[in-house]
Amino acid sequence: MAAVKRVLVLGGGFAGVYTAMALEKALGGREDFRITLVNRENYFVYQPMLPEIISGSIGLFDTVSPLRRLLPKTEIQVRDVEGIDLEKKEIVTSPGFKPVAHRIPYDYLVLALGNVTDFRGLTGLTQHALPFKNLGDALFVRNHIIHVLEEAAIERDEALRKSLLTFVVAGGGFSGVEVVAELNDFVRGVAKTYHGIDRSEINVILLHGGDRILPELTEKLGLLAQRVLNRRGVEIRFKCYLAAATTDEAVLKDGSRIATRTLISTVPSSPNPLVDSLPLPKERGKLKVNGRLEVEGADGIWALGDCALVPNGANGFAPPTAQHAVQEAKVAAHNVVNAIRGGESHEFSFPGLGKLGSLGHHSAVAEVFGFQVSGILAWVMWRTIYLMKLPGWDRRFRTALAWAVDMVLPPDLVQLKIAHSAGVMQEHYEPGQTVFRQGDLGDRLYIIIKGRCDVVRRDGDSERVLANLGPGEYFGEMALLNQTTRGATIQCSEPMDVLSLRKGDFGALVTHLPALRESFETVMENRK
Amino acid sequence: MAAVKRVLVLGGGFAGVYTAMALEKALGGREDFRITLVNRENYFVYQPMLPEIISGSIGLFDTVSPLRRLLPKTEIQVRDVEGIDLEKKEIVTSPGFKPVAHRIPYDYLVLALGNVTDFRGLTGLTQHALPFKNLGDALFVRNHIIHVLEEAAIERDEALRKSLLTFVVAGGGFSGVEVVAELNDFVRGVAKTYHGIDRSEINVILLHGGDRILPELTEKLGLLAQRVLNRRGVEIRFKCYLAAATTDEAVLKDGSRIATRTLISTVPSSPNPLVDSLPLPKERGKLKVNGRLEVEGADGIWALGDCALVPNGANGFAPPTAQHAVQEAKVAAHNVVNAIRGGESHEFSFPGLGKLGSLGHHSAVAEVFGFQVSGILAWVMWRTIYLMKLPGWDRRFRTALAWAVDMVLPPDLVQLKIAHSAGVMQEHYEPGQTVFRQGDLGDRLYIIIKGRCDVVRRDGDSERVLANLGPGEYFGEMALLNQTTRGATIQCSEPMDVLSLRKGDFGALVTHLPALRESFETVMENRK
Repeated sequence: MAAVKRVLVLGGGFAGVYTAMALEKALGGREDFRITLVNRENYFVYQPMLPEIISGSIGLFDTVSPLRRLLPKTEIQVRDVEGIDLEKKEIVTSPGFKPVAHRIPYDYLVLALGNVTDFRGLTGLTQHALPFKNLGDALFVRNHIIHVLEEAAIERDEALRKSLLTFVVAGGGFSGVEVVAELNDFVRGVAKTYHGIDRSEINVILLHGGDRILPELTEKLGLLAQRVLNRRGVEIRFKCYLAAATTDEAVLKDGSRIATRTLISTVPSSPNPLVDSLPLPKERGKLKVNGRLEVEGADGIWALGDCALVPNGANGFAPPTAQHAVQEAKVAAHNVVNAIRGGESHEFSFPGLGKLGSLGHHSAVAEVFGFQVSGILAWVMWRTIYLMKLPGWDRRFRTALAWAVDMVLPPDLVQLKIAHSAGVMQEHYEPGQTVFRQGDLGDRLYIIIKGRCDVVRRDGDSERVLANLGPGEYFGEMALLNQTTRGATIQCSEPMDVLSLRKGDFGALVTHLPALRESFETVMENRK
Repeated sequence: MAAVKRVLVLGGGFAGVYTAMALEKALGGREDFRITLVNRENYFVYQPMLPEIISGSIGLFDTVSPLRRLLPKTEIQVRDVEGIDLEKKEIVTSPGFKPVAHRIPYDYLVLALGNVTDFRGLTGLTQHALPFKNLGDALFVRNHIIHVLEEAAIERDEALRKSLLTFVVAGGGFSGVEVVAELNDFVRGVAKTYHGIDRSEINVILLHGGDRILPELTEKLGLLAQRVLNRRGVEIRFKCYLAAATTDEAVLKDGSRIATRTLISTVPSSPNPLVDSLPLPKERGKLKVNGRLEVEGADGIWALGDCALVPNGANGFAPPTAQHAVQEAKVAAHNVVNAIRGGESHEFSFPGLGKLGSLGHHSAVAEVFGFQVSGILAWVMWRTIYLMKLPGWDRRFRTALAWAVDMVLPPDLVQLKIAHSAGVMQEHYEPGQTVFRQGDLGDRLYIIIKGRCDVVRRDGDSERVLANLGPGEYFGEMALLNQTTRGATIQCSEPMDVLSLRKGDFGALVTHLPALRESFETVMENRK
């Protein structure tokens, strides 16, 4: 009997999970290969429904399925993939409780690593913009929105109130449009529960680079979607690119700024960084594969989904959608099995069934089999199709139930506080921006990495610049060590990146690191 | 017309929320007083059902109600209370987005601050034990349990597997028993989904100081509960006190240790630390009140719930249960209204309706009106009573639905990764314990606060102690700066507390703080 072959699938999105599903089916009763799937989460996210978590019209866990239940015959390893060794035919994953490298050998490899939201090159976005890609992001966005509403309800400073009640979403593709629609519905829906908030104070803004949203659809449907969003109170800004972000502003390429505490960016995305590091042929940053999804020049390696550039017969390349990933998965699984058992390989070709985008609140736009549908009909179609495509009867049941409940009961607005502010944090500031004001409570210390700022002291009516600080210098230590309020105002004078430390962490470090304590004492002596 | 009085309620547990509810009712159409409630979360947690979140038999948000929906006529402020100024009649809350102190003045004050899980004086518990008090705790515990199962499924080191599959709960009162019952049901229930885990490998241990669990109930019911838990696989250790905790051990008072990665402690609890700081009469750490719930010697201040020692007529003092808090709330609200409008004050007296404790999986124990009930009858009673007591029809509906779904569908096992490991963290080690081993991957730097450890290097078969380190010294920096694996093993020689920093944070600090960099370079030079 031949040795049992090891098939390793990397990635638990549509591409990876449906490949493993098809492999399980092909396995039948035979045991001539074993399937292992590695993913950083122990669940599969049904992406198209993720925006609904913002409004709470489905429960937090309704859009996700535990991988172990979807793939009962697959060995699941919940780890990050840290490296792939094509020579040795093994991968290295992140360590678990024991800090040792963990290696998994393979005979056949399926790369379905997907893409990531990539804020590189966009100043301050990593620190201050909220991505919207996985379940944790969705929960974070929802909690953050409730948090700003709670604060707006008791805040009397007009400028701060306005920035708290301004919500900005960047990206006018399917994902951005669905997020802005759900966010808008939710915020305006729950606002009436907050006595201190008038609904007219709320601004929801969609930033889009093109001149109409939803470029994936026909012009007619795109314009229709715009009208629906406008009617519901979403302001759409066209030909508008996000350039930078700070704690309280979205900075646009034309130099204009929007004061906001909520900036969600669904763009730009790029393939998983792991793909970059592989010595395999790439095009547009994606893995180059042939029609059989084989990676060119590599034996026994297939790639599919958003990390691969998949030729799609006469249709150019396959777009990064769920329906294409699912069809690719079937082809990839078939070809893997053929490599093991022999037989004829399949070529991928899939015209696509249609395109659907939800606009929230009983409205959607769709193009199906050449027909254009919109409004409540498209919305019912959207729900029906996605419900039937959801893997597993238990999820379908839970989701249908959640939708039914949502029609009867008011939206939930519980804020789950989970994300502790990071101990050591990077922040970005733009010129003219204030880091903190004289008299504010002090809870962080700042170290300048790049850029400059002024230290300004106000005495009655007069203001005086005490110092101009640059890289390697720090500020804010006074309030932490011997005062509770800030003795001066810090104003950014050149675009500035700082490293900030929480009061408690700073205290612990200064107490236990004599060198650090001495250095701070010297600076403080000089600043007296 | 008389000035509108300001009634301020601190705390959003049973005591605070039901006081505000009764105040709203008393308000009627009149506007002679305004109600403000301050709480750190924007929701009320229905504590008795919190353990069910572990097993997922109810959804994450089913046990909690948004305060704004429960209290439509009350001004809700979602902040931490940082100080109470009895002289000026105002409170100070934590800052929001703007770092300035926020003050709320009052005419009448209701203190319902509850109690907190208090690990002070118990070495290492703050760092390594999981509390179980609020919604965040419950979600964290659930995710942690799924995380250890995922790791156990792929771990081949026998000792580590054993500690991953050992779950310890400290405290044999209602809360500890309900937590251990739900945890045990969940772990054993989902284990079959993990190919790599044999159910016989799982250990669930309940530590209890007394000689039988549930001291709140009669001996008969306590013993019955023990038998039920034993039958389901829970090991109960009596006269057993937790003394300390480390990353991978629970240390008992008799010196014995249990290797575990999951230690949940529901004890000990003490009143909110804010109560300590108030210049008001206290007894057993709680606020002393008279039968009318007035704080002795203070005018216009009432206290109730778990932060107060409430005389209960002939029954001694009121126990810290939800039903007592609710009855106290009615009396407090009545007396506050009387102070404003005039009238006769009420005295608190409540015999209690009964005691109920769930044992999970269709079983419970109860004492109601002198009758003792157990098994499925008590369980049905438990669910019915708690369902009816749940505030708000929408929650009742959601919870009933979740219970119905839970009977049909398999338990969910999605692990929501949310808690990032803290940047700067304190950890505790016991003698003989290893912090890390030679050859491990290095991801943290350690600074010794207290205690000592040996640096041991292995060369082939021989082992050599390179150094013995003490307070102020650090280790682990080598692997971060120029190697990826640890060059030596660190073994604790005297009980040791360390401060640890994540690799990335350490790198950022060393790069941007010249003083710190120099000090590390000197040490490294000496260690070459």
